[in-house]
Amino acid sequence: MSAPLALTMGEPAGIGPELALKAWVDRQGSHVPPFAILADPDHLATLSRQLGLAVPIAVTEADRAQELFPLALPVIPLDMAVLAEPGIPNAADAPAVIESIRRAVELTYAGKTSAVVTNPIAKAPLLRVGFPHPGHTDYLGVLAEQRGGPSIPVMMLWCEDLAVVPVTVHIPLAAVPAALTTDLIVQTARIVAADLRTRFHVRKPRIAVAGLNPHAGEEGAIGLEDRDIIEPAVQALVQEGIAASGPFPADTLFHAAARENYDVVLAMYHDQALIPIKTLAFDRAVNVTLGLPFVRTSPDHGTAFDIAGQGRADPSSLIAALKLAAKLAARQAL
Amino acid sequence: MSAPLALTMGEPAGIGPELALKAWVDRQGSHVPPFAILADPDHLATLSRQLGLAVPIAVTEADRAQELFPLALPVIPLDMAVLAEPGIPNAADAPAVIESIRRAVELTYAGKTSAVVTNPIAKAPLLRVGFPHPGHTDYLGVLAEQRGGPSIPVMMLWCEDLAVVPVTVHIPLAAVPAALTTDLIVQTARIVAADLRTRFHVRKPRIAVAGLNPHAGEEGAIGLEDRDIIEPAVQALVQEGIAASGPFPADTLFHAAARENYDVVLAMYHDQALIPIKTLAFDRAVNVTLGLPFVRTSPDHGTAFDIAGQGRADPSSLIAALKLAAKLAARQAL
Repeated sequence: MSAPLALTMGEPAGIGPELALKAWVDRQGSHVPPFAILADPDHLATLSRQLGLAVPIAVTEADRAQELFPLALPVIPLDMAVLAEPGIPNAADAPAVIESIRRAVELTYAGKTSAVVTNPIAKAPLLRVGFPHPGHTDYLGVLAEQRGGPSIPVMMLWCEDLAVVPVTVHIPLAAVPAALTTDLIVQTARIVAADLRTRFHVRKPRIAVAGLNPHAGEEGAIGLEDRDIIEPAVQALVQEGIAASGPFPADTLFHAAARENYDVVLAMYHDQALIPIKTLAFDRAVNVTLGLPFVRTSPDHGTAFDIAGQGRADPSSLIAALKLAAKLAARQAL
Repeated sequence: MSAPLALTMGEPAGIGPELALKAWVDRQGSHVPPFAILADPDHLATLSRQLGLAVPIAVTEADRAQELFPLALPVIPLDMAVLAEPGIPNAADAPAVIESIRRAVELTYAGKTSAVVTNPIAKAPLLRVGFPHPGHTDYLGVLAEQRGGPSIPVMMLWCEDLAVVPVTVHIPLAAVPAALTTDLIVQTARIVAADLRTRFHVRKPRIAVAGLNPHAGEEGAIGLEDRDIIEPAVQALVQEGIAASGPFPADTLFHAAARENYDVVLAMYHDQALIPIKTLAFDRAVNVTLGLPFVRTSPDHGTAFDIAGQGRADPSSLIAALKLAAKLAARQAL
């Protein structure tokens, strides 16, 4: 029997715990792979009652989670109690939020869980306890680095129809042109190509590189970055045997016929990557971190404090994240 | 009987003339409204033979086009012969290309045609004869201005599922933040609101305004333009009674459920507007010019020299442009 997935608690005042309960409830209908959540069992039991979900909680360690999963939600208990009420984050819970992530990685390194799936966290409470990382992805990179693993995490958004990687992410649009370098594009594409081969088993991944400017700059008529920064990156990648092409005008890159020509799009900035995938697959997009020595996925949404605790949160993206993690972990083990 | 649509020839070496022939052939199956094309009849007859389309050509003036349309393609002849071969633009045809546009506007002002539908043009040959306008839209604005009409043309991309207006268009991405002003957003939104009321008969158009930065800037954490430039524009619009809202994170603005909440999105730059609509409706998106005293639509693609004359061009977008023009012109006449 293979190991279960490690699901983190995420921000306990957000929708993460509710999504975990709902994913377990829907485990048969949606073919949800076995997972254990690293959380406070009492917090989950209370939430389950409040939401009228009647989820039996099984406090356990990772090794029994697989066996318990059909009958109860396996919870690997954290060392501290969770205080937050739905919608009301409590900074006192920040150490538990961090602990949940750290232990999920630890268990996965130890082979006791097969992959890390993270629930959404909120930045503000973590900042208050001195957590120096802007988000999950960077913290996971640091945890991997501490163990001697590679440490250039790359965010990919994935759904059945489309995979996109933004080369720059959470920076102002005005800062994008200066942040784009030929090196950054080449390094990102190398990680994408390597992980699509080893994790997704795409033999020769086809990477379509988007242009930065309208019409990919029309040969310099509308901005020079496409010609001077992106094109040399594509050429360098092709020379090292990576099936990269472009830069392509971004507006005509994402319709159904265009999507036949590549396995992944390298986008130059956040919205260029996220607009098409969220337009096509709002509830089903999954965030996958490439470039780490372990598999990590997460739902592609935030803590949604405004609807937490109301029973209205949609577990589709978390379920998609769990299923993709299980698939990638199984392939990795082959 | 109402007046026919005026269709321009566009660049004769591009796919425009082929699209016109195909739209006429498909007039019954696709319910194409009656149109007359302003072109060289001999050029069209030759092309029709080469493509094996056997389209009968009726040289006519606008007033008989409607009546002839069921049996032949009505062609309002230009004053000069067209020389271009498919795929090989000839700068000597530039005056005919311009004349076709000018006369379509003239006929529409005179009420002899009901609206202007333009086939794609190529910039290079027109530049060579000193045509000073970067594209159709600006030239049409000048023609309207010469007749005392309003002269702030605004480009809208439209399909059944989505309408988007880019506030800035064919400029480098690096130039977008500086080009965005509160005034520009307000002026553009006013034209959009007015034309959606008068042309599309939307009583109180709901305008969703997209943010510029990732997550619409997260209250200033990722760039200040959303807070300092876009938000004041939305407030000013609301104060003058326009149903504007935003700025919204652009990535979550275009999925099906989000689209229920607005009639049009005001996007801050080219790809932010064109990525979602071309992802959803690659072959069916229509370019509509708002802010003119007449109706003007066009297919949302270029001259496609690479496939011109091969019979491979898809007339879907031109047919959608003809149908939308007829609908808007009919409503305008009510």
